[in-house]
Amino acid sequence: MEKITPRTQNYSQWYQDIVEHAGLAEHSDVRGCMVIKPYGYAIWEGMQQQLDRMFKETGHQNAYFPLFIPKSFLSKEAAHVEGFAKECAIVTHYRLRNAPDGRGVEVDPEARLEEELVVRPTSETIIWNTFRNWIKSWRDLPLLINQWANVVRWEMRTRLFLRTAEFLWQEGHTAHATREEAIEEAERMLEVYARFAEDWMAMPVIKGLKTPSERFAGAEETYCIEALMQDGKALQAGTSHFLGQNFAKAFDVKFAAPDGTLQYVWATSWGVSTRLMGALILTHSDDNGLVLPPRLAPVQVVAIPIYRSEEERQTTCAQVERIVQNLRAAGIRAQTDTRDTHKPGWKFSEHEVRGVPLRVAVGPRDIQNGTAELARRDTLTKTLVPVDTLITHIPQILDEIQDHLLQRARQRLQDGITRVDSWAEFCDVLEKKGGFLSAHWDGTAETEARIKELTKATIRCIPLNNPPEEGTCVLTGRPSKQRVLFARAY
Amino acid sequence: MEKITPRTQNYSQWYQDIVEHAGLAEHSDVRGCMVIKPYGYAIWEGMQQQLDRMFKETGHQNAYFPLFIPKSFLSKEAAHVEGFAKECAIVTHYRLRNAPDGRGVEVDPEARLEEELVVRPTSETIIWNTFRNWIKSWRDLPLLINQWANVVRWEMRTRLFLRTAEFLWQEGHTAHATREEAIEEAERMLEVYARFAEDWMAMPVIKGLKTPSERFAGAEETYCIEALMQDGKALQAGTSHFLGQNFAKAFDVKFAAPDGTLQYVWATSWGVSTRLMGALILTHSDDNGLVLPPRLAPVQVVAIPIYRSEEERQTTCAQVERIVQNLRAAGIRAQTDTRDTHKPGWKFSEHEVRGVPLRVAVGPRDIQNGTAELARRDTLTKTLVPVDTLITHIPQILDEIQDHLLQRARQRLQDGITRVDSWAEFCDVLEKKGGFLSAHWDGTAETEARIKELTKATIRCIPLNNPPEEGTCVLTGRPSKQRVLFARAY
Repeated sequence: MEKITPRTQNYSQWYQDIVEHAGLAEHSDVRGCMVIKPYGYAIWEGMQQQLDRMFKETGHQNAYFPLFIPKSFLSKEAAHVEGFAKECAIVTHYRLRNAPDGRGVEVDPEARLEEELVVRPTSETIIWNTFRNWIKSWRDLPLLINQWANVVRWEMRTRLFLRTAEFLWQEGHTAHATREEAIEEAERMLEVYARFAEDWMAMPVIKGLKTPSERFAGAEETYCIEALMQDGKALQAGTSHFLGQNFAKAFDVKFAAPDGTLQYVWATSWGVSTRLMGALILTHSDDNGLVLPPRLAPVQVVAIPIYRSEEERQTTCAQVERIVQNLRAAGIRAQTDTRDTHKPGWKFSEHEVRGVPLRVAVGPRDIQNGTAELARRDTLTKTLVPVDTLITHIPQILDEIQDHLLQRARQRLQDGITRVDSWAEFCDVLEKKGGFLSAHWDGTAETEARIKELTKATIRCIPLNNPPEEGTCVLTGRPSKQRVLFARAY
Repeated sequence: MEKITPRTQNYSQWYQDIVEHAGLAEHSDVRGCMVIKPYGYAIWEGMQQQLDRMFKETGHQNAYFPLFIPKSFLSKEAAHVEGFAKECAIVTHYRLRNAPDGRGVEVDPEARLEEELVVRPTSETIIWNTFRNWIKSWRDLPLLINQWANVVRWEMRTRLFLRTAEFLWQEGHTAHATREEAIEEAERMLEVYARFAEDWMAMPVIKGLKTPSERFAGAEETYCIEALMQDGKALQAGTSHFLGQNFAKAFDVKFAAPDGTLQYVWATSWGVSTRLMGALILTHSDDNGLVLPPRLAPVQVVAIPIYRSEEERQTTCAQVERIVQNLRAAGIRAQTDTRDTHKPGWKFSEHEVRGVPLRVAVGPRDIQNGTAELARRDTLTKTLVPVDTLITHIPQILDEIQDHLLQRARQRLQDGITRVDSWAEFCDVLEKKGGFLSAHWDGTAETEARIKELTKATIRCIPLNNPPEEGTCVLTGRPSKQRVLFARAY
């Protein structure tokens, strides 16, 4: 197996190597589009299942809306079209024909659409156009809908999972009778995302608000969760938008209130995507490969026999089979690797690269002694344990791994936030340490843009429950009422 | 609630009414594309979950491939492009710009793609282009991949679920070392589909082979399952294709065999789609609305309180809550309908329209007598039962309903196959009775086409394990060696 580039040598290549060697995804021959490989897709399925459960527990229902959005729909909300028109795939024709020169096929010029269709970059417009018919009275509210779908945003520079032209995501779209209820919903779903990130991905996040210039195109307020990667760069892991009445007005969606008046509906939308796969990889992995939190690992335990003779093969294989059957009966995702085509060392490193949280190895001596060797992927430590304690030990160790990954990432996040009070300090910390810079900002878009231009750092968020604090802007020295978090970001 | 058009009056309107009144789907403002509404989507999710389980049990893994297919890929397999070029959505540009007249946005002519992209109508080409890098040796085979995705085929005349421009489906794509293994796989997945149709949808099917002219574009053999709807029309519910080495040759996918030779890979593909929703509706529903087999019903039991006074409201609501909690604890998808905004009769008919298999009603007299009224959706029969027997009765009755729907549909399928031996008989039965006509055919595409032209009936399949039988073609009188099944079809 090829070596993974160490993080210190080339961080970006390290990421690419892990995605490739762990068999998670690859670039396709279609510009900007990825292929999600079976192992990567299995992790994504685990994420989907848990998120879907959390959405349903909070009262949401799944539905499905068209892939295509008529160009005119996109134009109805001014800020929205401004944000998405520049990066979309446009369907203009509906038929190919044989090329006159007999070489392949070409677009049939007679099959031009009257109105071009945009491949959805996000579905607010088509969904609110539909909601108009679904919402008549306050009794129809709240309307709590989620969609699992593919979306396309034409990106010029792509990175697997982190930024691709096509990606998979879920988009929640909800309609409410009052501003307060909509804001509550946007905050509730932000909380769901934060809980998912912490409890399942073992990835602590900072919950906050975007500044006006970083808001979703068409939103009145954008909430976000921001995580910190190992290289000191921030990653936006999910957003939840309070859309006000913008889309209701653009698509004329009104409801009859209990008092008989007709009012515009209040909206939210919120989404997470296959980008979470990138966040998961960047948060926990090491120079040996992928590291997965047990709750999201498609295989939590792999059991490998070690043998030379045929007799040894039989006894060790039988033993690992028994172990795996017991673990499965206890609800653990365990599997054997009894392939005769590879040596144990090769298998060890393959499962290590793929981030299997726990490895059990059984050799002839273990058979004699009634033991097994346990190896943890997160700490790379090995212990010899009595084989009959595995069934009680392993669930505990999986919990420990899940917890350890979270604590380690939490520590990194805590250590990664630096209070800076001058421009020199800002630049110095950004260069030497990275991470989040908690700094005063004068609140203007100009200063925000200038800082980005000078340093590539952006305001990641204004943390929720941010304490008010008098200060002066790190760049302009103008007065400021609170600190915000800056960082360079993915 | 509006009345559903009776089947005898207008069958096609009846179907449309059920889809609408049961809240399953609706036409969107995007030509040919549907919106799958929450209740319809919940049924589809039930189908997906079970199919996904069956695919995984047979060793398949999910993955995800790009939405877009470069035009040149589509052209690589001659029959394939012939079959799909005429009905596809084509992306030609990747950017919109503000219209010079200030009115909305327009396609930016400078953002024209060098090569047009086709929105996938099916993914053989992009997947085999990827398989080329995944398959090197016989050790990489079999490769058993499935994808859940949306696909687009530009249809001029659409019907909700049955024929839409965009639809949801799964497509299996597998690669094998030998012709025999590939054929085995194609047959195995046909069997999976047939089992799903019978055991879950309560829809018996005929397994067969398509004639050459009805084959999938690029297949050497197309297997299919065909069902019979209540109006005597056939519906193709799923197909499984043996693709030979066609795509391996088109995309140059070879493997090193154990003997060291390089050989082309053998392929299959197989798929079912949201069309199954149409089949489900058409198979079981009646003039009162949707009828759902319990295994696929999002709500299997609904419990409704009947009351006048506030005191009655409290006792009956408490009772239905208790019933539902017990049922849920037993793994049954049960829910109460305690809405105070609607009368019981209104609720009864709403849940009837939505096909909830079993209704439990509890009134004040039931509270006194310790009884509850059970109403079956399939037979529309009501029985009064002791409330404390519900927990043992209801699972049995749900099984009975599932079984009854299957038996009823099976009877209809059996009765719906008519052996015909002359052209006069063929035309007569087709007009007066419909269903499948088991008839001799001379085996030529010309006769097949002529019969279609004359009667709109097509050869639905040559049943698997068809007994050989000497005879003469119903149309031409030429010799025939077996009967095939003709029908008009959806």
